[in-house]
Amino acid sequence: MIEELNKVKDTIDTILVNDDYPSTIKPEHLQNAVRAFPCMGGKRLRPALAIWSCGLLGGDVKEAEYAAAAVEVYHNWTLVHDDIIDNDDTRRGKPTTHIILQEYAKENLNFDNTSNSPEKFGRDFAILAGDIQQGWAMDLLLKSIEKGVSPAVVVALSRRLQRLVNRDLISGEALDVEFPHRNWEKLQHSDIEEMLYLKTGILLQFSAEAGAVIATGETDFDDERISNIGEFAASAGIAFQFRDDWLGIFGDSDKFGKPVCSDISEGKPTVLLATALENLNENNRSKLLSFIGQYNYSKSEIEIIQNLIRLSGAEKVIEEKTEALLSKARILLDKYKDNKYKKLIASWLDFLVLREA
Amino acid sequence: MIEELNKVKDTIDTILVNDDYPSTIKPEHLQNAVRAFPCMGGKRLRPALAIWSCGLLGGDVKEAEYAAAAVEVYHNWTLVHDDIIDNDDTRRGKPTTHIILQEYAKENLNFDNTSNSPEKFGRDFAILAGDIQQGWAMDLLLKSIEKGVSPAVVVALSRRLQRLVNRDLISGEALDVEFPHRNWEKLQHSDIEEMLYLKTGILLQFSAEAGAVIATGETDFDDERISNIGEFAASAGIAFQFRDDWLGIFGDSDKFGKPVCSDISEGKPTVLLATALENLNENNRSKLLSFIGQYNYSKSEIEIIQNLIRLSGAEKVIEEKTEALLSKARILLDKYKDNKYKKLIASWLDFLVLREA
Repeated sequence: MIEELNKVKDTIDTILVNDDYPSTIKPEHLQNAVRAFPCMGGKRLRPALAIWSCGLLGGDVKEAEYAAAAVEVYHNWTLVHDDIIDNDDTRRGKPTTHIILQEYAKENLNFDNTSNSPEKFGRDFAILAGDIQQGWAMDLLLKSIEKGVSPAVVVALSRRLQRLVNRDLISGEALDVEFPHRNWEKLQHSDIEEMLYLKTGILLQFSAEAGAVIATGETDFDDERISNIGEFAASAGIAFQFRDDWLGIFGDSDKFGKPVCSDISEGKPTVLLATALENLNENNRSKLLSFIGQYNYSKSEIEIIQNLIRLSGAEKVIEEKTEALLSKARILLDKYKDNKYKKLIASWLDFLVLREA
Repeated sequence: MIEELNKVKDTIDTILVNDDYPSTIKPEHLQNAVRAFPCMGGKRLRPALAIWSCGLLGGDVKEAEYAAAAVEVYHNWTLVHDDIIDNDDTRRGKPTTHIILQEYAKENLNFDNTSNSPEKFGRDFAILAGDIQQGWAMDLLLKSIEKGVSPAVVVALSRRLQRLVNRDLISGEALDVEFPHRNWEKLQHSDIEEMLYLKTGILLQFSAEAGAVIATGETDFDDERISNIGEFAASAGIAFQFRDDWLGIFGDSDKFGKPVCSDISEGKPTVLLATALENLNENNRSKLLSFIGQYNYSKSEIEIIQNLIRLSGAEKVIEEKTEALLSKARILLDKYKDNKYKKLIASWLDFLVLREA
């Protein structure tokens, strides 16, 4: 599977590096910022799903390549805006877009006699870079007509991108930003599960649907050939997120790349934490609540947090939920005829969810 | 013309207020923010141009209604992001999107124990509101298929929106943000003219083109039936901006709604100012430069600025440029056969450019 994933990577890299969309953007450093992040690499798991879903349904996988590049750029622009909102300075070990633009401003522009600052300039230009990337993603999807996809299919996919992905994915992001400011007592694990579906599941679902629609020419998204693989992908996305939340508390921080319990430190609501709070008795609940938002934790504090979450039964609940999503996904995938791409998608699921870190 | 413009207003208001696109956005105050600004009104000059251009070429104007609503929402999302970047608290006499969301946050959310603030929350949510509006605009354009526009035409218009409008309009915005931080000595009036075309001309051009493409079914944007009315609209947009710059220095501040010389106070580069600086002698140039960025101006200082700009010949230059653009636009419009819509578009041009404030 890794070999095939590398082929997808090469295809997407070639498309994005050579695409002329960014070439007329001014000024030049904005153009560079628009290109930088999508062309930097990454695992390209969404494009792989789009291309392989097309193959799963017997389509010509080449026809899905621009749609695959589109979901990657789409994912990228949402991260550029996320990083501004979350004040994140690095991603994938590199400076984020607003930091790159801030550094450019410090070196090249003049901020005397203005109320502006290089920091604000970096954020402002990163807003614009993400805005252009949203347009670039749309243009790539529309460009599928050059691969022989019919205009009617392209229009259907473009509307699906707006109606399913844009408003729902961004709603998920908005809920994620807002939850830490709501009253924790009132936040149900079901609220958080919905947010995860919107924020993580939706774009994976669209990636899979896009490949299936291109393969079949079917524009009814309720058709089972489309909806089954779409639901497969959404379930995989939520399972991935549950696994991520579990690793955030019980994982190896060196492999995981974030300090243990950083979600709790940041007050980020997870289903794991919400379930623990729902199940603990008054006393232990107050104890766990008191750790939320603390700057960092000692070894013994981490053990207390881990024990409280185990004691509540939340760890078991999250493991069972992850398993249930995985088997649901496997059953959905099994409805398709065996072929090379079905095997690749099965490995893709394991690769996404059953990682160590 | 005003009566016909009011009909367009009603059409666009009805479409936007009833459109279901925003209905699934969560949380509810983000949904309200996405709807608020596009549904608030405004002159609807871009939609009018889209609909009337369709009529100019003998098309069924009803077919252009969703495209007309799309350009309005497209214009709106760029303003939502602009207002964040420019720190503007009001627009059309109402609080801007980030201010509305900031006020919501102050009243309803909890910011204890977080590094966040209602001000940042307002800006963050306004970024997301604009992002969704960009998707909404696309969805409205795509929805033109429901009015009977062919998928091939819809794909061509959607690509044009990405390739002509998105990257170029946002490039114009980026240049506008950056110019005050560049070295004024190096800024040519031609740089500023290019920025104006990108920032103001492009979306008007697309509005006119969209109507013409829907009327004719022609997807070659170099076809003269399309390009002439497109160029008409772009020229009108730049003439409008020159007029705006002139009013900013020589206009009646009560009618204009901004203090006289606020462009100079904000260090905003205009062709008027750049031309004056290019033409003045060393001594007067330094004098004019010394006023840039000053917080406000006394009556006598305003007179000195006005006299310097007149002395340089820049006022005359800008008047001549505006006239040249207006006659170019009129000649382009005259290439079309007479009908009701041609008259409306001629009045539209006067309404846009020859206003008192």
